[in-house]
Amino acid sequence: MYKAAVMVAPQQPLEIRDYPAPAMEPGAILLETIYSEVCGTDVHLHHGRLAGVPYPIIPGHVSVGHIAQIAGEVKDVEGQALREGDVVTFLDVHETCGRCWFCLVAKAATRCPSRRVYGITYSAEEGLLGGWSEAIYLKPGVKVIRLPEEVTPERYIAAGCGLPTATHALERAEVQLGDSVAVQGCGPIGLNAAILAQLSGATQIIVLGAPETRLQMASAVGADHVIDIEAYGPEERVARVQELTGGRGADVTIEATGNPSAISEGMRMTRDNGRYVVVGQYTDAGEVEINPHWDINRKHLEIRGCWGSDFSHFYRGLKVLAKHGERFPYEGLITRKFGLDEIDEALAAVEELRVVKAVVQP
Amino acid sequence: MYKAAVMVAPQQPLEIRDYPAPAMEPGAILLETIYSEVCGTDVHLHHGRLAGVPYPIIPGHVSVGHIAQIAGEVKDVEGQALREGDVVTFLDVHETCGRCWFCLVAKAATRCPSRRVYGITYSAEEGLLGGWSEAIYLKPGVKVIRLPEEVTPERYIAAGCGLPTATHALERAEVQLGDSVAVQGCGPIGLNAAILAQLSGATQIIVLGAPETRLQMASAVGADHVIDIEAYGPEERVARVQELTGGRGADVTIEATGNPSAISEGMRMTRDNGRYVVVGQYTDAGEVEINPHWDINRKHLEIRGCWGSDFSHFYRGLKVLAKHGERFPYEGLITRKFGLDEIDEALAAVEELRVVKAVVQP
Amino acid sequence: MYKAAVMVAPQQPLEIRDYPAPAMEPGAILLETIYSEVCGTDVHLHHGRLAGVPYPIIPGHVSVGHIAQIAGEVKDVEGQALREGDVVTFLDVHETCGRCWFCLVAKAATRCPSRRVYGITYSAEEGLLGGWSEAIYLKPGVKVIRLPEEVTPERYIAAGCGLPTATHALERAEVQLGDSVAVQGCGPIGLNAAILAQLSGATQIIVLGAPETRLQMASAVGADHVIDIEAYGPEERVARVQELTGGRGADVTIEATGNPSAISEGMRMTRDNGRYVVVGQYTDAGEVEINPHWDINRKHLEIRGCWGSDFSHFYRGLKVLAKHGERFPYEGLITRKFGLDEIDEALAAVEELRVVKAVVQP
Amino acid sequence: MYKAAVMVAPQQPLEIRDYPAPAMEPGAILLETIYSEVCGTDVHLHHGRLAGVPYPIIPGHVSVGHIAQIAGEVKDVEGQALREGDVVTFLDVHETCGRCWFCLVAKAATRCPSRRVYGITYSAEEGLLGGWSEAIYLKPGVKVIRLPEEVTPERYIAAGCGLPTATHALERAEVQLGDSVAVQGCGPIGLNAAILAQLSGATQIIVLGAPETRLQMASAVGADHVIDIEAYGPEERVARVQELTGGRGADVTIEATGNPSAISEGMRMTRDNGRYVVVGQYTDAGEVEINPHWDINRKHLEIRGCWGSDFSHFYRGLKVLAKHGERFPYEGLITRKFGLDEIDEALAAVEELRVVKAVVQP
Repeated sequence: MYKAAVMVAPQQPLEIRDYPAPAMEPGAILLETIYSEVCGTDVHLHHGRLAGVPYPIIPGHVSVGHIAQIAGEVKDVEGQALREGDVVTFLDVHETCGRCWFCLVAKAATRCPSRRVYGITYSAEEGLLGGWSEAIYLKPGVKVIRLPEEVTPERYIAAGCGLPTATHALERAEVQLGDSVAVQGCGPIGLNAAILAQLSGATQIIVLGAPETRLQMASAVGADHVIDIEAYGPEERVARVQELTGGRGADVTIEATGNPSAISEGMRMTRDNGRYVVVGQYTDAGEVEINPHWDINRKHLEIRGCWGSDFSHFYRGLKVLAKHGERFPYEGLITRKFGLDEIDEALAAVEELRVVKAVVQP
Repeated sequence: MYKAAVMVAPQQPLEIRDYPAPAMEPGAILLETIYSEVCGTDVHLHHGRLAGVPYPIIPGHVSVGHIAQIAGEVKDVEGQALREGDVVTFLDVHETCGRCWFCLVAKAATRCPSRRVYGITYSAEEGLLGGWSEAIYLKPGVKVIRLPEEVTPERYIAAGCGLPTATHALERAEVQLGDSVAVQGCGPIGLNAAILAQLSGATQIIVLGAPETRLQMASAVGADHVIDIEAYGPEERVARVQELTGGRGADVTIEATGNPSAISEGMRMTRDNGRYVVVGQYTDAGEVEINPHWDINRKHLEIRGCWGSDFSHFYRGLKVLAKHGERFPYEGLITRKFGLDEIDEALAAVEELRVVKAVVQP
Repeated sequence: MYKAAVMVAPQQPLEIRDYPAPAMEPGAILLETIYSEVCGTDVHLHHGRLAGVPYPIIPGHVSVGHIAQIAGEVKDVEGQALREGDVVTFLDVHETCGRCWFCLVAKAATRCPSRRVYGITYSAEEGLLGGWSEAIYLKPGVKVIRLPEEVTPERYIAAGCGLPTATHALERAEVQLGDSVAVQGCGPIGLNAAILAQLSGATQIIVLGAPETRLQMASAVGADHVIDIEAYGPEERVARVQELTGGRGADVTIEATGNPSAISEGMRMTRDNGRYVVVGQYTDAGEVEINPHWDINRKHLEIRGCWGSDFSHFYRGLKVLAKHGERFPYEGLITRKFGLDEIDEALAAVEELRVVKAVVQP
Repeated sequence: MYKAAVMVAPQQPLEIRDYPAPAMEPGAILLETIYSEVCGTDVHLHHGRLAGVPYPIIPGHVSVGHIAQIAGEVKDVEGQALREGDVVTFLDVHETCGRCWFCLVAKAATRCPSRRVYGITYSAEEGLLGGWSEAIYLKPGVKVIRLPEEVTPERYIAAGCGLPTATHALERAEVQLGDSVAVQGCGPIGLNAAILAQLSGATQIIVLGAPETRLQMASAVGADHVIDIEAYGPEERVARVQELTGGRGADVTIEATGNPSAISEGMRMTRDNGRYVVVGQYTDAGEVEINPHWDINRKHLEIRGCWGSDFSHFYRGLKVLAKHGERFPYEGLITRKFGLDEIDEALAAVEELRVVKAVVQP
C-alpha cells in the first residue's frame, strides 16, 4: 500500500489516502517517490483557479524517484533500456497527440489540446497520477530521463519545474553574447531564468522582486543587480533599469511574476527593438492597461508569450544542471522539506511566500 | 520660384508660399514634384499630435518627381549615375547616423535617434524639404531610386508610404506558404498589407475595417473575406475570424488601424503560437486593456511592433510593384488628386475618410 | 481482386500481380487509386540505387484516390470525419515515432529513423502499400487529406511529390519580398520551386536546366529567365545569373538537379550572404569539389540541406494549390498517362527525360 | 618620431622605419600602442597570399593603446567623450559605407566593398595605419571603445582578433542550452570559440587540433574533450565525436582551421539537422571534395559561412571579456611578447606554431 496526499476540493485541507500497488500495463513504470515539488500552480489548484480540474486530485507535477517496477522493456530517448533502481524523473505533461493541427502544422506541441498533466488533470480516482504520494504510476509512453550522475535528487527538485519552464523562456529570449537581461520576479521561475540567462551569454542580470530573502537568493545565483519592488514604485523601477543599461533598457526582459501589472512595466524597461518574454502569467489574474503606441509600435518591441514546456526543454535543462549545477547554490532554494502529513503547511508556506521553495518528501 | 503649401501651425489653414530655387550643395538633387501624398500622418500633423514638429513645415513625405538638377555626380544604390530628367523617388527618412548604438549594436536603424524625415521634422524655413511643393530639395546623401519602367508615377504614389511600411510589416510577419492572414484596417497601410500578404504566400486574407468603400477596395485587391466593423462588434469579429480559420484564428494578424482597442481584439483573433504585427499605432491614441494570461502567455503569442521602414523596405517594395503592379488595381486607391490650392480640402477628405487616398499634384 | 505493378528486383521488368481486398485493421482506409506518380526516385529504385529497399515492392509514393472503405471512424487533421467516396491523398512518409531524440529534442521529424514510406520501404508481400495499384491500403495512423474542391485529382497529381518537397525547400529558403531566386533544375521539383518562389515574394525567377521542353514549361510557369545548360557551360551560367542580378548573384538559389556538380556552381551563382537550399541530391551520385574560402567563408554563404517533407509541407502545399492552382498550367506538366500495363514504358520515359511528368492511371 | 615595423614586400625581412607625428584631421585620434597582435593573417600577408595588398604596409590589425591626442571632441558609441590618456581599442575594419546594396539591402556590412582594414589594406606610405608601431593614427570615424576597467591591455590582446571573430561565429551558430559543440582547430579563433560556446549555453565542448601545447590550452579553457589530429585520422576523429555525442554528432560544429580538408570532416561530425559554421577559411588554400547527398541534403545540414566581424561583435566580445575574463586563463594564450626589432622572429614563431599567440610590444 502507498500513501498519497489528496486534494479533495478547492480550499479544503488535504487528506492522506492509501492506494494499493497499481496493476501494471505493458510499458508502464512504477516510481517510488524521492521528492516532489510544491509550486505556485499547486496554490492556484488549491484556490480552485484553474479550469477543468477533476477534483479530487493527487497534486505534484514535477517529481523524482527510483524505479520500483517496469512492465516489459522501456527505453529512454537515447535508446537505453531503463532498469529497476534507476533514479529518474519524467515529463509531467504527456499525451501530446502527434496528430492534431497544432502538433503537425503549427509544430506548437505545448498547445496540443490532448495534453494531460500529472498532478493536475488526473483525478485521484484514476490512480497514483501525482507526485505527492509514496509512489507514482507512469503510464506507458510517459517520457522518462535518468538523472545524470552529477545531479542529486535534491538538486534536481530544487531546480524543479522552474528549470524546464525557464529553459523554454530562454529559448524564446534568444539572448546574445553581451546582452543585458532583466528578470521580473524572483520565485522559482525567475531564479532559474536568472541562472539560465547567464549561461546563455548575458553579461548583466537585473532581478526585480520581493521579499528580501528571495532577492538575496537572486544575488546568490549571480544577479548583478536586484531591485526591491517593495521599496520602489513602477516608474522608479523602470528608471533604474534604464540607468543600469546606458539609458536604453534591457535587451531582453523575462516576466516571471504572475501579476498582470508587471506587463506594462516590463515593456517599458525593455529597450527599443528588444525582446520581452512573458512566461509568468499562468492563471487569469486580470487585465492590464498598455499603451500600444509607446510600448509596442514605436518601441519596435517583440513580445513573446511562452506556455509550458516540452521534452526538449526538460532534456536540455537537465544537461545544464549536470554541467553547471555546482556553480549555483540550487539546494539553497529549498527552504524546507515537508512530509505528506505536513502538506497543508507546505501549501500555506508557498502561498505566503515564507519559503523560496517547498519540497515534499513522502 | 516654386510654390509650396505650408502648414504654419496645427489646426490652421495651410498657406501657399513662394520659394526661390535653392542653392545646391555638392551631391544635392532638385526634384520637380509630380505627385506627393496626403496620408494619415499629415492629419495627425495638422492636429498637432506629433511631438517636436518644427512648425511651420512643408508636409509631404512620400513623393515622386523628375530630376531638374544634380550638383555633381550622384549614384543610386546599384552604382548607376542619376541623370537630369530621371523620374525618381527617395527615402523620406534619412540621416540615419551609422554610428550610434542602435545603428551599430542593435542594428535597428529605424530607432536611430538622428533620423530626420522629409515633410515632418524640417521647418519650412530650412527650405523645400517636404513634398507638397512644386520642387523638393534632396540634400546630399538622401537615397534616391529611379522608378522602374513598369511603374508609372501614378501607380507609385497610389501605393505610397503604405508600401514600404507594409513591406516592413510583412518582413516582421514571416508569412509562410498556406497561412491565413487577418488585416485590421483598410486604409493605405492595411490595403498594401493585404496585397503583400498574398504575395508572400498567404492563401487566405481577411480584412476588417470600414467604411464600405474601403472594404470594397479590400475585396478588389484580393481579400477573400471582409468584415465590416461598423456592422459587427469586437466579439463577433473575433468569432468570425475564428470561424473562417477552422476555429483557430489567423496564423498572422497585421494591425493597421491606429486605434488602441484593436490590439486586444487582434490578439484574440490570432491563433495560439501565431504572430501579431502591430504597425498602425503611429501616434499616441491612448491605452487599451489586455489580459496577459489569455492573450499572451497561454496563447504563446508573438507580438511584434513595427516602426517605420528603412531603405531595404523601400527598395523591396518597389521591386514588388514593378513585378506585380498590374495584378492589383492600385490606381483605384487614388480617390482624387488635389492641387496645392486645394490642400485644406485634401486634408479634410482624408480625415473624414471620404477618400481612400488623396494625392497632391502641385 | 486488385491489380498492382510489382518491381520484383532492380533492372527487371515490372510484373502485374493480383491482390485480394485486404483485411481492414481498425482505423485503416482502403483507397481506390485515381492516379499515382512516376518520379525520379522510382527510376532510382529501378536502378537499385537506394539502400535497404525490400524488393519486390509496389512503387508509387504520391497518389490520389477515393475512399472505398473505412474501418471505423477516422478524422483528418481538422477533426473532420472522413467518409466513403471522399477524394483524398495521404502523406506517404509515416510512422514518424514522436519518441526519439530527433522527434523530441532536435524537432527534425524528417530525420526520425522510424519513418517508413509507401512505395519505397514496404515489400509487396506486406500488401497494397504502393500507388501503382488499383487500390492502396492506408494503415491506421496514415495521415489523410481530402482534396479541396478547387483541386482536381489531375491537378493534384501534376503537382505531385514535387509540391511538398518544394514547399519544404521554400520554407528553408526564407524568400523575402523582392528577392531574386535561381532554380537549378527544371524537373518536377524545380518547376514546383519556381512556382512557389513566385508565390513567396520573389520578383525574379531564373531557371537553369534542360532539355528545351522542360525549359519551355519553366517559362510557362512564370520563370523570368531560363538558361539552357546544354548551350552554356558552368562559368557562363554563373556569369549569366550575375548579369541578371546586378552583378551580385541570386539572393536565393534552390538546387533541384540531383547532379553533384551543380553544388559548386550553385554556390557561385548565389550572392554574398545569400541562401542556398540543396534539395535535389536524393541519391548518392558522387562527390564534388568546392573551394571553402571563396564559396562559403568569404561569401558568408548560408547552405541549407533539405530532406524530405513532413505533414506541414504536405498540408501547406495543398492550400497553395487550392488558392493559386488556376494561375499555373500544372496539368501541362503531365506529358502522358500510363496504364499499369504500360509501366515499363513510363519508367523509361522518365529516365530518358522524354516526359516532364508521367502519371499512372491504374 | 615614432618607430614602426614595415613589411616592404612578401617574403622579405621587415624594416624599422621612423615616422613623424602625423598631422591630425578633425575627429582623428593618435594612439600610443601598448600591444598589437601577430596573427595567422600576418603570416599570410608575409607569404603574399592575400590579393590587393599595397606593400609596403605596417601590419597589425588588432591593437590596444592609450590616447595621446584627440583632434576635437570624439564620442564613443555610448555617447561618452573620449579623453587623452584613455586606454582604448578600435575596430580595425572601417569605412563600411552605409550606402551600398550590401549595407542597405542585404544588411551584410562585412561584405561592403568599401571596407578598409588597419594593418592590411593601407600602404605604409599613407601613414601610421597599422599596429606594429609605436603609434597608430585613427582616422576620423574609426570606432573606438574604452577598455572596461576589468580588462587589462594584456588580457585584451590575449583574446585578440579571435574574440570578435569567434563572437560572430557564435552568433551564426545559434547555440542552444544543452548543445554539444565541436570546434575544429585550437589556434586563437578556435580557443575563443571554445570559450564563447560554453558561455552561450553549450554543455559539451570537443576541440580537435594540434599540437599538444595548444590542446592543453584548449583543456585549460574548458574543453570537455580534446582530440589530437596528429594521433587520429579523419575517420577516427569523426567516429570519436559521434561516440561522445550519443552516436549522433555535434549539434554545432565550428570550423577554425584554415584547412580545406576540415570541411568534409566537419560536415560528417555534425549531427543531422545541425549547424556547421565555417569561419577559418580566411585565405584560398585550395579545394575539398564533399558528397552533397550524404553531407548536405540527406543530413539536412545547415552550413553557415562567417566572414569578418562588425562593430557589434567587437562590442559584445568586450562585454563578455569584462564579465567572464577572470574565469578563463586568457593571458596564458600569450606565449611570448616581442619588441619591434624581434618582429621577424615573432612571425616565424607564429608560422611554425611554436607559440599559441605572439604579441608585439612596441
